[in-house]
Amino acid sequence: MKEILHSEYPTLQDWIQEMLTSAKASAMLITHLPHIRWMCGFTGSNGFLIVREDSMHLVTDHRYKIQATLEVSEATIHIGAYNLINYAKTHGLVIATDTLLIQPEYMTLASYQQWHDEVSDLSLVPQEKFFHRLVATKSHHAIAGMRRVQWISDLVFDEIHPYIKPGATEKELAARIDYYHRKHGASQMAFETIVAFGENTALPHARPTQRELKQDECVLLDFGGIVDGYASDMTRTLFVGSPNEEFLTAYASVRKAQNEAVKKVREGVHCSDVDQAARSSLTQDGFGEFFSHSTGHGIGMEVHEWPSLSTGSDTILKKGFTVTIEPGIYIPHQFGIRIEDTVAVQSHGCQRLSQIQQDLIIL
Amino acid sequence: MKEILHSEYPTLQDWIQEMLTSAKASAMLITHLPHIRWMCGFTGSNGFLIVREDSMHLVTDHRYKIQATLEVSEATIHIGAYNLINYAKTHGLVIATDTLLIQPEYMTLASYQQWHDEVSDLSLVPQEKFFHRLVATKSHHAIAGMRRVQWISDLVFDEIHPYIKPGATEKELAARIDYYHRKHGASQMAFETIVAFGENTALPHARPTQRELKQDECVLLDFGGIVDGYASDMTRTLFVGSPNEEFLTAYASVRKAQNEAVKKVREGVHCSDVDQAARSSLTQDGFGEFFSHSTGHGIGMEVHEWPSLSTGSDTILKKGFTVTIEPGIYIPHQFGIRIEDTVAVQSHGCQRLSQIQQDLIIL
Repeated sequence: MKEILHSEYPTLQDWIQEMLTSAKASAMLITHLPHIRWMCGFTGSNGFLIVREDSMHLVTDHRYKIQATLEVSEATIHIGAYNLINYAKTHGLVIATDTLLIQPEYMTLASYQQWHDEVSDLSLVPQEKFFHRLVATKSHHAIAGMRRVQWISDLVFDEIHPYIKPGATEKELAARIDYYHRKHGASQMAFETIVAFGENTALPHARPTQRELKQDECVLLDFGGIVDGYASDMTRTLFVGSPNEEFLTAYASVRKAQNEAVKKVREGVHCSDVDQAARSSLTQDGFGEFFSHSTGHGIGMEVHEWPSLSTGSDTILKKGFTVTIEPGIYIPHQFGIRIEDTVAVQSHGCQRLSQIQQDLIIL
Repeated sequence: MKEILHSEYPTLQDWIQEMLTSAKASAMLITHLPHIRWMCGFTGSNGFLIVREDSMHLVTDHRYKIQATLEVSEATIHIGAYNLINYAKTHGLVIATDTLLIQPEYMTLASYQQWHDEVSDLSLVPQEKFFHRLVATKSHHAIAGMRRVQWISDLVFDEIHPYIKPGATEKELAARIDYYHRKHGASQMAFETIVAFGENTALPHARPTQRELKQDECVLLDFGGIVDGYASDMTRTLFVGSPNEEFLTAYASVRKAQNEAVKKVREGVHCSDVDQAARSSLTQDGFGEFFSHSTGHGIGMEVHEWPSLSTGSDTILKKGFTVTIEPGIYIPHQFGIRIEDTVAVQSHGCQRLSQIQQDLIIL
């Protein structure tokens, strides 16, 4: 059984027992693919995992017959035909008297209905976020994976500098960022790479266009890769040419706000307090109204994980969590600035995983 | 209002009326992002669309304030705070006496619960696939979009030929395929590019590894991009060096099966008959047991759309559908062969969107 470092539960077995007992369930039905991967190593795109106190059963389809054998050691592998739920019933993996603990955020209404239709009398007990804390609390091994993928993103950040020059298009630069990630071993990008120039940076979720970079414009890069199942996420805002006072003032304010938030992060602190640290700092500088999103989010096997670092979040940070800290200022039709780092929460503070400076880089 | 070519309904308005009337609903709640994009043009990653007989309301968050204004003309834009459902209620976009037609395949149990919690007495009526046929039946404009993205994939296929040589790694080649797509204007890839060499081709959903290509090995490439919201999808199996008789026999069999299936495609034919055409052909050649997946799937704004071209699918093909035809043979630990084309269904046949030959390319 997998060892769970940093967690309240000494072993995965203890966690499973506790979850099943408190939900009065006979088994868990895990339907979210990253969680299936976390539990048994399977990386295919279809299937579900039934977890009982004394056994785990992965049900997937023919396409993954060989792959599942190579990847999965801790669960019994079952290869079903078109209807996997029916397969699970027919082969006794789920029985009518079962009470299954399910993940309501990761089960559609259609699938819920299908389980009920296939296995009459089955009890499905939805319980939100029961997996979140387990996955959020990363082992040393997982933190090492997070460092490795960030190391590759840092490398790519350095490699693309020569291409950030007047005449380059947003799309071209985004394509290059992705290419270098893949070249260095990323299986895919963690999300659609954001490259924005000039006034396009004012859109927090800008998509790269064919717009060309001009002299004396800012450049916002927000990207991350996935390497061995772990995601990176970083943002830097650069300037090509000579920034004016307004830009420099705003940059300094985001820089300070990000630093205030990062300084706040340590085990035991509420997520909302970290958000508040960034928000107060920007508000003091007169930029509060231009910070239109939350300060950060958990990150790990997926780029967006629990918890959210937002105003309303009462989650308490724990050692082993990895979260992003990414305040920004967006002045419509003018410019946007965001600085984002992924940090690993520790007992007495946190550590930024990226080695790239937060001070303004002028090219 | 958007014109719906090829559809049973002259205008979108007619379709909306028909759907609402038959479901006895006062409005539709569209939660699937590609369908939101189809209806109103919005490409953001968060929000929902409320469609009434006489109005459409897009609810999204602050991050998309500018973007929504640029993209959306046919719906009223509402920018909510953290809880968009609560925003919709507070602003009277949804009222307690409403009956909302919902998409059960695209609403999680958690979200369903949240709607009920926020708007008490609200009726939610799940109806599977009510949007599928509308989106599957493509206008001339949409088919043109499908051709354009396939044209770019064809271009990339030609461009990467020089890099398919002994010593190349699967990951490197996959990264290059993705890079060229992006360079030519793809916003992202339609799915994780598959590049497999030698015995790795026997895994229908292989992921690229650091394995190097050797002389006298086969190469399987399965990829597609997204350009202006439309997806491409194609597979070719090539050979570097001298293929043996066994490989050539299997290739000829897949080639024939793909052709039989493509010949079957036209308006009025059952999807299962197209699947059967490929399956019978492979079975006649003695390879039936090595074809472990379905023959194809709908494709459009997403790479996998309704309908499925599989044994059990009683859907009847219609003019304007675009589907993939992709039979394969997978001989464990030896090799796999798949040939895939996207075709547009017409009244008396179909047209392959790719211009790349299906005959074996030997490098």
